[in-house]
Amino acid sequence: MEDLNKKLISLSKRRGFVFPGSEIYGGLANTYDYGPLGAEMLRNIQNSWWQFFVRKRPDILGLDSSILMSPKVWEASGHTASFTDVLIDCKSCQGRFRADHIIEDYMEAKGEEAKVEGKTPEELAKIIEAYKIPCPNCAAFDWTKPRTFNLLFETHIGIVPENQNLAYLRGEIAQGMFVNFKNVLDTMRPKLPFGIAQAGKAFRNEITLGNFIFRTLEFNLAEFEYFFNPDKTDWEKLFEDFKQTIKEWVTSLGIESSKLRWRPHTPDELVFYSKRTEDLEFEFPFGFKEMCAVAYRTDYDLRNHMEKSGVDLRYTDPETGEKFIPHVVEPTFGLSRVFYALLANGYSEDGDRVVLKLHPDIAPYRVAVFPLVRNKEDIVNKAKNVFDALVDKGVSAAWDDRGNIGKRYLSQDEIGTPYCVTVDYQTLEDDTVTVRDRDTTKQTRVPIADLPRVVLS
Amino acid sequence: MEDLNKKLISLSKRRGFVFPGSEIYGGLANTYDYGPLGAEMLRNIQNSWWQFFVRKRPDILGLDSSILMSPKVWEASGHTASFTDVLIDCKSCQGRFRADHIIEDYMEAKGEEAKVEGKTPEELAKIIEAYKIPCPNCAAFDWTKPRTFNLLFETHIGIVPENQNLAYLRGEIAQGMFVNFKNVLDTMRPKLPFGIAQAGKAFRNEITLGNFIFRTLEFNLAEFEYFFNPDKTDWEKLFEDFKQTIKEWVTSLGIESSKLRWRPHTPDELVFYSKRTEDLEFEFPFGFKEMCAVAYRTDYDLRNHMEKSGVDLRYTDPETGEKFIPHVVEPTFGLSRVFYALLANGYSEDGDRVVLKLHPDIAPYRVAVFPLVRNKEDIVNKAKNVFDALVDKGVSAAWDDRGNIGKRYLSQDEIGTPYCVTVDYQTLEDDTVTVRDRDTTKQTRVPIADLPRVVLS
Repeated sequence: MEDLNKKLISLSKRRGFVFPGSEIYGGLANTYDYGPLGAEMLRNIQNSWWQFFVRKRPDILGLDSSILMSPKVWEASGHTASFTDVLIDCKSCQGRFRADHIIEDYMEAKGEEAKVEGKTPEELAKIIEAYKIPCPNCAAFDWTKPRTFNLLFETHIGIVPENQNLAYLRGEIAQGMFVNFKNVLDTMRPKLPFGIAQAGKAFRNEITLGNFIFRTLEFNLAEFEYFFNPDKTDWEKLFEDFKQTIKEWVTSLGIESSKLRWRPHTPDELVFYSKRTEDLEFEFPFGFKEMCAVAYRTDYDLRNHMEKSGVDLRYTDPETGEKFIPHVVEPTFGLSRVFYALLANGYSEDGDRVVLKLHPDIAPYRVAVFPLVRNKEDIVNKAKNVFDALVDKGVSAAWDDRGNIGKRYLSQDEIGTPYCVTVDYQTLEDDTVTVRDRDTTKQTRVPIADLPRVVLS
Repeated sequence: MEDLNKKLISLSKRRGFVFPGSEIYGGLANTYDYGPLGAEMLRNIQNSWWQFFVRKRPDILGLDSSILMSPKVWEASGHTASFTDVLIDCKSCQGRFRADHIIEDYMEAKGEEAKVEGKTPEELAKIIEAYKIPCPNCAAFDWTKPRTFNLLFETHIGIVPENQNLAYLRGEIAQGMFVNFKNVLDTMRPKLPFGIAQAGKAFRNEITLGNFIFRTLEFNLAEFEYFFNPDKTDWEKLFEDFKQTIKEWVTSLGIESSKLRWRPHTPDELVFYSKRTEDLEFEFPFGFKEMCAVAYRTDYDLRNHMEKSGVDLRYTDPETGEKFIPHVVEPTFGLSRVFYALLANGYSEDGDRVVLKLHPDIAPYRVAVFPLVRNKEDIVNKAKNVFDALVDKGVSAAWDDRGNIGKRYLSQDEIGTPYCVTVDYQTLEDDTVTVRDRDTTKQTRVPIADLPRVVLS
């Protein structure tokens, strides 16, 4: 499986899906840039999510809030106090590590599972002491006390040093929805239950590196807060419904059910205000890890923001006139991880042929158009017409006029293009083209007029 | 015209286009959140741009690079040294201002135009001295020397104070394309001329406030770098072609040509490496201001990055084998400003009726679906079917079942929805609906089966 990870990283770099960030300057650890194919694929994933969860649902409204938010938002949400990692130093080799990772890795090597999320620095220190867990770098057992550090990226607004204000890059996108709850209520007048959704970047000052794009400083999230009246809506049913809907979207992208599992948070790792949280884990090349999640957050966030801001965030029931703070269930989607999962899920080898089995809606290109030869003007022009007609219908298309057709097929297989269309001499006579299917490798002769129907089916 | 600005800000807030950022905590100056309607409209603008400039053009490749980039990138590009504002303090009232704005506002009040871009702090000081320009706040003439401050937002990677590394939030998105030039070349093997495009957020630590979303700390850009061989491609023709293409896209969104003008940069304001730069200005409520631009940047950026990084960024001509650094023409689009321009361009009043004349591809909703009454289950269900069928075809649709139909029309007019579809008693009999056109206010009876054709035409 680790082998698969190497292949994915190599393929991503070689074919233009994902490049290391700032690479020509030696890189900036834990940042990545999406190349031409990755940028298309990420857009497709995000658009699919938006279509499925926002546009198709009259009960969910979109939002696009700022990355820079007032420090008061993060004080109120508890992030400035407790959005932290616990770090520990080896006095012998000066190595610095996350205390929870030291324990997890040690237990995993022993074949046991350790769930250490939510533990205090003191509790983590006790476990390290109890098991005499050595430094993974130098094998010494000579640790400092664990210390807590905040994961929010700080910056300063105002360019004159003596007059700057602290601000944070958002560490999650949920707060944008809570802070705008009243604005959405006042402008759109939605009735409970309803959701507010957004997709965008979040930033975390993580020290953990590795595992490709699984955990990065800057990453793509999508989530929605679904608000309801706890007296009228059964949260357990809502929770189960969303679990199903989340899985429905994920599998609609082509991810196999066998590679997915729900993992409820244990009482230890559950944050105090959540009555239930479950992670949807995908079997990444390095094991089952969180990709999506759903959490019942009660009325904690709105109540908190209402108290701290002094602004009334209650909802008024239009029938009874009763005012109350809605409760919320929150489905979260790590879109960068969904991207990664789709690569891992789709990668396959058939002899020397590498095929990336991506869903046609997700593949960087749905179709590739080939002029059989590039020195025959009428064939090239005909192929250009075919390309333009497909693109005008909203089909994403690649153009390739290099090398023999067999090599072009292999090249498109590796980047997941479902259909290859070849314009040849016969096309000039009867307006038909060869359509070759990525998965079956079968070739069929299709009239040009039928192409949109064939490739969009 | 200032009146129009107030109306736009009020409409944006009242109807869910744009909210002040972090508002319940007193706001974070110069940040804005896009509400449910603004989020949809911004997505539509960005998707239109991507479709027009990337997907339709086999010669332009997409990219999605990180917001956090290595400081070395910004040192090489010159941003750490010269991406600056010149500020000046009034010793009398302690007010702090941008020196260029002080001069511009003073000259404008005199009915003259001052072009001060590109001037050094010393040159600005001389102008202020020559005209004895007083403090706009207290009218004193008692200035400090102008000082230069950098606009890049700083942050620190790594959470342990003694071991942090400086990083910057990108101040423009262009550097992502230059830094990835070799990666794109190696993976996609494009032939000159070709472009690399991206759309995303940039951040500038501006002190200037006001003018709604015209100048904000965080804003949406889209641009592409178009690389060419200066011996084979005539840059002046390329430049003119792109001017035309830029205007073509902007007017395809419905912006009137009469509200657009090209303004070439004067020799004074032209950056030293650019041979020509022109701004496409839109007539905002506060006057003609930059919305898009096109710049011929020669080979400055790639040459610079090649020298500073030590990585060979030359292109090899596939026919001659000659190695050289391509030149580049760069079209830039301020998408947040395009958003603003579309609101200003589309706003109209017809008696009490406010109509936002947005292009159907850009309007938050292309169609609104109304059940005539909400207490007749068969009408509501029929309307839901109509809604679902439209959404399944990718049409963005609003649902409104509140109040009388006339009021619903007015409500949709104000947010720019081109078509309103009413499902009534007759629908249950003959499967036809009333389609009402925003601009003509004409109502026509249309079979449900024809709806997609009608609203997508």
